[in-house]
Amino acid sequence: MFFASDNTGPVHPRVMQALVQANEGHVPSYGSDDLTRAVETRIREVFEAPEAAVYLVATGTTANALALACLSRPWDTVFCTPEAHVQVDECNAPEFYTGGAKLTLVGKADRMTPPELDAALVHHGSGDVHIAQSGPVTLTQVTENGRLYTLDELRALCDLARRHGSPVHLDGARFANAVAALGCTPAEMTWKLGIDAVSFGGTKNGLMGVEAVVLFDPARAREFELRRKRGAHLFSKHRYLAAQMLAYLEDGLWLEMAAQANANGARLAEGLRGCPQVVFDYEVQANMIFATLPRGLHRRLHEAGAKYTLFGSLEGPEEDTVRARFVCDWSLRAEEIDRYLALLNA
Amino acid sequence: MFFASDNTGPVHPRVMQALVQANEGHVPSYGSDDLTRAVETRIREVFEAPEAAVYLVATGTTANALALACLSRPWDTVFCTPEAHVQVDECNAPEFYTGGAKLTLVGKADRMTPPELDAALVHHGSGDVHIAQSGPVTLTQVTENGRLYTLDELRALCDLARRHGSPVHLDGARFANAVAALGCTPAEMTWKLGIDAVSFGGTKNGLMGVEAVVLFDPARAREFELRRKRGAHLFSKHRYLAAQMLAYLEDGLWLEMAAQANANGARLAEGLRGCPQVVFDYEVQANMIFATLPRGLHRRLHEAGAKYTLFGSLEGPEEDTVRARFVCDWSLRAEEIDRYLALLNA
Amino acid sequence: MFFASDNTGPVHPRVMQALVQANEGHVPSYGSDDLTRAVETRIREVFEAPEAAVYLVATGTTANALALACLSRPWDTVFCTPEAHVQVDECNAPEFYTGGAKLTLVGKADRMTPPELDAALVHHGSGDVHIAQSGPVTLTQVTENGRLYTLDELRALCDLARRHGSPVHLDGARFANAVAALGCTPAEMTWKLGIDAVSFGGTKNGLMGVEAVVLFDPARAREFELRRKRGAHLFSKHRYLAAQMLAYLEDGLWLEMAAQANANGARLAEGLRGCPQVVFDYEVQANMIFATLPRGLHRRLHEAGAKYTLFGSLEGPEEDTVRARFVCDWSLRAEEIDRYLALLNA
Amino acid sequence: MFFASDNTGPVHPRVMQALVQANEGHVPSYGSDDLTRAVETRIREVFEAPEAAVYLVATGTTANALALACLSRPWDTVFCTPEAHVQVDECNAPEFYTGGAKLTLVGKADRMTPPELDAALVHHGSGDVHIAQSGPVTLTQVTENGRLYTLDELRALCDLARRHGSPVHLDGARFANAVAALGCTPAEMTWKLGIDAVSFGGTKNGLMGVEAVVLFDPARAREFELRRKRGAHLFSKHRYLAAQMLAYLEDGLWLEMAAQANANGARLAEGLRGCPQVVFDYEVQANMIFATLPRGLHRRLHEAGAKYTLFGSLEGPEEDTVRARFVCDWSLRAEEIDRYLALLNA
Repeated sequence: MFFASDNTGPVHPRVMQALVQANEGHVPSYGSDDLTRAVETRIREVFEAPEAAVYLVATGTTANALALACLSRPWDTVFCTPEAHVQVDECNAPEFYTGGAKLTLVGKADRMTPPELDAALVHHGSGDVHIAQSGPVTLTQVTENGRLYTLDELRALCDLARRHGSPVHLDGARFANAVAALGCTPAEMTWKLGIDAVSFGGTKNGLMGVEAVVLFDPARAREFELRRKRGAHLFSKHRYLAAQMLAYLEDGLWLEMAAQANANGARLAEGLRGCPQVVFDYEVQANMIFATLPRGLHRRLHEAGAKYTLFGSLEGPEEDTVRARFVCDWSLRAEEIDRYLALLNA
Repeated sequence: MFFASDNTGPVHPRVMQALVQANEGHVPSYGSDDLTRAVETRIREVFEAPEAAVYLVATGTTANALALACLSRPWDTVFCTPEAHVQVDECNAPEFYTGGAKLTLVGKADRMTPPELDAALVHHGSGDVHIAQSGPVTLTQVTENGRLYTLDELRALCDLARRHGSPVHLDGARFANAVAALGCTPAEMTWKLGIDAVSFGGTKNGLMGVEAVVLFDPARAREFELRRKRGAHLFSKHRYLAAQMLAYLEDGLWLEMAAQANANGARLAEGLRGCPQVVFDYEVQANMIFATLPRGLHRRLHEAGAKYTLFGSLEGPEEDTVRARFVCDWSLRAEEIDRYLALLNA
Repeated sequence: MFFASDNTGPVHPRVMQALVQANEGHVPSYGSDDLTRAVETRIREVFEAPEAAVYLVATGTTANALALACLSRPWDTVFCTPEAHVQVDECNAPEFYTGGAKLTLVGKADRMTPPELDAALVHHGSGDVHIAQSGPVTLTQVTENGRLYTLDELRALCDLARRHGSPVHLDGARFANAVAALGCTPAEMTWKLGIDAVSFGGTKNGLMGVEAVVLFDPARAREFELRRKRGAHLFSKHRYLAAQMLAYLEDGLWLEMAAQANANGARLAEGLRGCPQVVFDYEVQANMIFATLPRGLHRRLHEAGAKYTLFGSLEGPEEDTVRARFVCDWSLRAEEIDRYLALLNA
Repeated sequence: MFFASDNTGPVHPRVMQALVQANEGHVPSYGSDDLTRAVETRIREVFEAPEAAVYLVATGTTANALALACLSRPWDTVFCTPEAHVQVDECNAPEFYTGGAKLTLVGKADRMTPPELDAALVHHGSGDVHIAQSGPVTLTQVTENGRLYTLDELRALCDLARRHGSPVHLDGARFANAVAALGCTPAEMTWKLGIDAVSFGGTKNGLMGVEAVVLFDPARAREFELRRKRGAHLFSKHRYLAAQMLAYLEDGLWLEMAAQANANGARLAEGLRGCPQVVFDYEVQANMIFATLPRGLHRRLHEAGAKYTLFGSLEGPEEDTVRARFVCDWSLRAEEIDRYLALLNA
């Protein structure tokens, strides 16, 4: 009953096996090895982007921070939602890597709309030297609250950014879950809409610790390489990052795991819907559920061993409600979900 | 015949096995797991430092940059040798992480002496607001050129730094090789001499990508944690860092591998000594050899498949000499070394 | 009819005369001169703070950025209002000087209340390493919209900050106007309430370009000195900063000018009140007026030579309203104000 | 007898008068005033560079730091001499403003030669991602030790930099002294040689605190403006910077003062040459003298009121020698110099 996060589960066995297989003999370091060449080619194929610059790093915050730094200057502002991971969960890493750029909050919670973005772009694009200047827009798909932008919604935001001269970054910590849910291709969800850079997550979906950064404009490649090294994020034994990502992309494993995670989310959501005391914050579209339950229920479930995030305390009146987040990863077994639901309805 | 670097070899099988064993079920993320608790305890035992704050990161540059940042302020200067890794191989990572501190070069090549350090400390400790202020001293053991400071030499430098109020950092990318070569304990080579912080390397000695930072003053712990997160170096699936380091420290594997690497270095050095055309730059004390050979010899050996670093080109007159670096890791087989030597003497 | 800003007017003749008087012979540079010693003493007297560390800089953004940098660490967040000068008018200078701290927006427009601040302090003070950590609170008095906090309101905010361990900075770009309006002493508006650092403005009130930073805790002095030099804000010919500030504080000139500026604001406000088409945004409490007028009126007044800031365009339907800002400085003559009012009512 | 520095003297009366004249009525702030327009035009004329971007700041460190930041990226290294002001006297301001670039020391003391620069450019231009990348070259003229590069020497260094793709900055804190000494034009000493950016000093030569930055490539203008504002160096009452610089450039006042300062230096040098105990470090070429005298002489002269910098203590054996620096500004009277010389020879 582990719904705390999709970064708490194990590495997929096929990924682990790939690491074991890669562990043979001496190979050049710092990404000059054959596996790294192979994974770069593979990612370009997956994104149908033969010119893209592709890099592997170990954490999602690294991917976001380096990508945003390549798209902005220190006197710029990045535009993100108030609940964007880059704003609330990265301990000022974006500010650090950009050299002190500001984050301007656009929209509500985890989403922004074109009129909201337009107002911000107009203000910061006035040319006034006293204000933070217009920088990149960063969007998250699946959003931090488990929601999806439609491709049309993304396109509208990208078009707007383009008109104002702002590049667009996509935080794809749960990129695979979004692609699986929308049934689109990676290209359709990125460069075909006008997205310039993607943090292509792997860690939350069965890898040990690998994310790819995909820069569709290869002119940004050299700067990224220098920022990565300067940030201490260039791995000497790079083959082990490459081996993981190669296994992830082989035979569609990445989409298979994401589909399973989404299915787990749907199974849990369906069960929760059956409990009249549960109130959902949002439509469940991927592998995350935000919902409110009476504290008494939470208490009982936690005592029984369930693990998930509460936005409030277990202490207090039984009947008060407490908001919770449930995240399902690919490795959750149906029995665990059903056990939770059985306890809920007991 | 792979002598290019000790970061080109494989992960030790026992370490790989530990990763496989750790790959079970859901565990808390970001270092709240049991393996992380266990490895912290184990490192404190190895260093006989029950109060030390201990952190795992994935690259040596991360360890150095975060440790130095915790010991300095942006208007300080770090004191290092002209060939220190932090100066020549980290693409300004120390400057980035310290917020713009300067690196002042003390000593010659890879070593500094107390009089040289004293002059620098006196100058930058004058209190003059116009100059870079005295910050930490960083020493490397084994040095970048494969040499060792004696414990007495280290103590003299630490004493001097202490008298001037400067903390001391040890870049221990090859810490294990040094301990194996000197036959001392980790404590004897660090806090007992007055060293405040250590980058305790693992990656060059059989790990996939793990280094520990050991801060002997636990008052620095919180700042390190925030710097690590802000630098995007906090791993969500932290158990996989912990598992590697635990296996490394179990049953003395780390020293066993280091001793083997040093023995490999000695075997190669002994063979090279037999070739009258080889001139050594330094006494060989660990697993690295810097030596000069005629270009014709290099050319023949490279054509036969030997891999090692040349400080010069293979193109040019046969009889000219070219300087080279040979690094032996734990996984090199004796036959490979002997094959190289046979070719050399052919 | 120049109401554009209080930084557009001339230097007070007594200040200019002090500059001429200071221009004699050779004196030590970088603040080691007698005038600097004298002005430090004088500021400590004005603030009844004999221990305070006192520094002169040339711009208000410098004063704010250096003071906030001394009160925060790069992984912190500064708490300010959405319309604070540090947030909207300093082109990321606070982010630059703090090394990448975040600005968290608290309250509405130019003011915050204790409950609003409390929520922010609680969230960022949780100890969670993933979020920006609680840093200093910065308040502006007179606010950017020309309003005043009462001393009780300031005290409540300071008390709250103190309970959460956050220091408080006061942006006093119009400090003199506030003291003149409230009829309190500098001490009563600062350290007696719990304020830790003040940007004590002079430039908007008759100086050529001098602000003082007052740090009530002298333990912060050394860091400020190094940050000032590193920021390139230490003047070699420091006597000319000192001479201005000394003249400013002599015989209450600073309060005399501020009272005149406030009286000018009141005269203009009274006149505007007589025009039924003018709608005030806020009660006028110092030397700034925010009000809405029909575009046709603005157009006529601008054509007649009036200068003030419009938050909107002169182009468009006559009858639409446009928001405007009027700022009165000490040097405005009553005839100018009356001429404006006459035109308004013509 | 004030030879401590050329930043200890007064402002030239014509400059002070210009300030008084500028102090009339309301004018637009932040450089939108007529005087600023006029001084920009005037500087372009002086440099025969009608396209140049021209900015005023208040300190020499500001001019250097902002100019270098515009010419480099955070992973670069700036090339300067070991005794360059940017390296030894700016408390890491260059590192701060560049976002963490490194300073690589080239040459000896205050000068570098083409072979020395070439070696550094070759090393840092190799493309290796691990090292600091080749950034701008900064040269000082008059150098920190009072020496001059010939125009041919400067041209050779600029040509070399250009071939390696590195821009060149000139720290002209004593630009006027150099032009006066060499008898060349500003254009001949800058863009005609290939220099890209100049810190054109005024403060050491009779201004209160104004330096101009001249960027010969106007494409760099916008970045400079944003860096200046973000660095808190944009003055609101900008007319007072402009007025000073305009007076400085009117009727050749700047060259007149510099010629006088150089003549004062020559008069002092000639006198010192007559004292057999004085040993000169360098040929005296402008307004600075570095020389060694017996401590006893220094002691006697200091007791008589002479002010100049000693690189050593007044305490110690009489007969030991102590190195000294003498700087003559435009305002020194011949009698003062002669009084010093009389005391010396007494």
